[in-house]
Amino acid sequence: MMNQYFEEYPKEVEKVLSNFFKMKRDNCKNKNIRDVIEKIEEYTLRGGKRIRPVLMIFGYKLYGGKNTEEIIKASVSLELVQSYLLIHDDIIDESLLRRGKPTIHRIFENEYNNQKIGADLAIIAGDLADSYAIELINRSDFEDQLKYKAIVKLSEIIEYTGYGQVLDILSPYQTDNFEENLLLIHKYKTAKYTIEGPLILGGLLAGKSDFEMISKYAIDVGIAFQLQDDILGLFGDEKALGKPVTSDLEEGKKTLLIIKILERANKEERDKILRILGSKNISMEDLQYVRTIAVKTGSLKYSQDMSEKLIADAITTIKDLNVPEKEFLIEFANYVISRKF
Amino acid sequence: MMNQYFEEYPKEVEKVLSNFFKMKRDNCKNKNIRDVIEKIEEYTLRGGKRIRPVLMIFGYKLYGGKNTEEIIKASVSLELVQSYLLIHDDIIDESLLRRGKPTIHRIFENEYNNQKIGADLAIIAGDLADSYAIELINRSDFEDQLKYKAIVKLSEIIEYTGYGQVLDILSPYQTDNFEENLLLIHKYKTAKYTIEGPLILGGLLAGKSDFEMISKYAIDVGIAFQLQDDILGLFGDEKALGKPVTSDLEEGKKTLLIIKILERANKEERDKILRILGSKNISMEDLQYVRTIAVKTGSLKYSQDMSEKLIADAITTIKDLNVPEKEFLIEFANYVISRKF
Repeated sequence: MMNQYFEEYPKEVEKVLSNFFKMKRDNCKNKNIRDVIEKIEEYTLRGGKRIRPVLMIFGYKLYGGKNTEEIIKASVSLELVQSYLLIHDDIIDESLLRRGKPTIHRIFENEYNNQKIGADLAIIAGDLADSYAIELINRSDFEDQLKYKAIVKLSEIIEYTGYGQVLDILSPYQTDNFEENLLLIHKYKTAKYTIEGPLILGGLLAGKSDFEMISKYAIDVGIAFQLQDDILGLFGDEKALGKPVTSDLEEGKKTLLIIKILERANKEERDKILRILGSKNISMEDLQYVRTIAVKTGSLKYSQDMSEKLIADAITTIKDLNVPEKEFLIEFANYVISRKF
Repeated sequence: MMNQYFEEYPKEVEKVLSNFFKMKRDNCKNKNIRDVIEKIEEYTLRGGKRIRPVLMIFGYKLYGGKNTEEIIKASVSLELVQSYLLIHDDIIDESLLRRGKPTIHRIFENEYNNQKIGADLAIIAGDLADSYAIELINRSDFEDQLKYKAIVKLSEIIEYTGYGQVLDILSPYQTDNFEENLLLIHKYKTAKYTIEGPLILGGLLAGKSDFEMISKYAIDVGIAFQLQDDILGLFGDEKALGKPVTSDLEEGKKTLLIIKILERANKEERDKILRILGSKNISMEDLQYVRTIAVKTGSLKYSQDMSEKLIADAITTIKDLNVPEKEFLIEFANYVISRKF
């Protein structure tokens, strides 16, 4: 059931995206503005799994929604929110590439041969993508009252993602409670944003308002999703991931794996790991060393156990659900910890 | 009538703002997140004329709205939008001060002794203020359907402000049509955002949907408002303005005054003005020189004539209006070009 969703809907989502941007471009008479719209379009259409729109479409159907065409239209708004957040993220992280192509601030930087203007235009491009997200919900043909609830929820989702971002930016200053702080970041930046939010948005547009069970399910699955991301970021296969498996280490990401390693390793190991973290051009030997210590200290197992426990809890949460869509929820939960990319 | 609005409502607006931020702080358990909320609160409460909320309250009453308490609550959202845009603006302009106090990126930069983290947290603080704007409309007690229309409009207003910002950032690359481009920036960044948008938002919450006349009035008044701002930025009284009267020149702002000067001055004058523009520590002699050339070339008169024509047109637009609120509209239009700060 899950595969069917992920085979069918991403194409539909991309079709709606293309039509939307064509309309925005055609309606725009100013060359400079149209240029920015085109950059946001290209960035948004670069791909990705379209996981948030697909979960929103699924959430709608889970709660009995029948108007597939319109929910696809509304779900596309989440790809614009994603562009909004990623464009600002790319500036913050000073990333050069996103999905294998230059980030927006880099594109503008090259176009105008000016780093400052690159970042400035990227801040605004992000803000514009946020406006487009609301416009896309507005353009779907649901009752105003339902769309209203969806937009208010969407804004709340973005608010919590912002809080997660604050904690993430400040995590280098954290002096204790590393694990607790990290799990809160995962809850805000991943679980609420990527899993719970989209499911509830779909449910709201289907006219429902009680999401206690799905919310509990989604937060557990969402945190497991991020833990698995971090595991793949150290142990994954470079080809499957589509990015260097050393990039998390080069970014100096303090994942749960790393937090546990630093907690459990001896002084010599810890010093070496701290030297590797955040340094450029990490060698295969360095990578192998971190992997070995992660296994030796039981840090890998600690992360895996936590993910598996979260997924087991999530499946228990929905055990009394009695609709065909239950199958998707179970498949999705299991996929989250078994996926290779 | 206008004075009554501007004496009465800003205080009410600030009361609602304070209560809102107190609630956000009280509901927040995380120290780092609360710290960001407090910074946005302090920034938003620093003052300003609260012109946008007041115009939204007025727009509501102009269109027959009776629930003053609730429109005040909803109008406060515009102060959060203002914080959102100003916080990002301050980053883009690398401004050190806003309303006499450090900008948010500077506050964070000092707090963490790290310039990059200052800008990063400020981007997110701006994004959070945008979410709060929507939350504030949601918390007012109008019908969902009216609040829906208001939020969609608000998002469109922010979109156009973004377009204005794009044009503004790229204006140094402009090679022709300087005046046309500048007037479009004024339309998007000032007229639609500061005057038309607030009036229409008030009207939407009063249940109306046809704003053709008020829109025409507002765009004319709004452009005149910005032209007057630029005139005061060169000819104004430092004490009344509350900022150095050389700051527009130091920023190198290509106002309509400057565009006309560069178009009309002789080579020697133009070269000298170009040297003054954007340089630091502009002397009183430099300032006086630019003022003299602005008068001599008729550039000041050109700007003043345009403002006066726009205001006359605006007043003609509303001549057949037959409600007591017409008085406010006429007073406001005249205030825009007669104000000293």
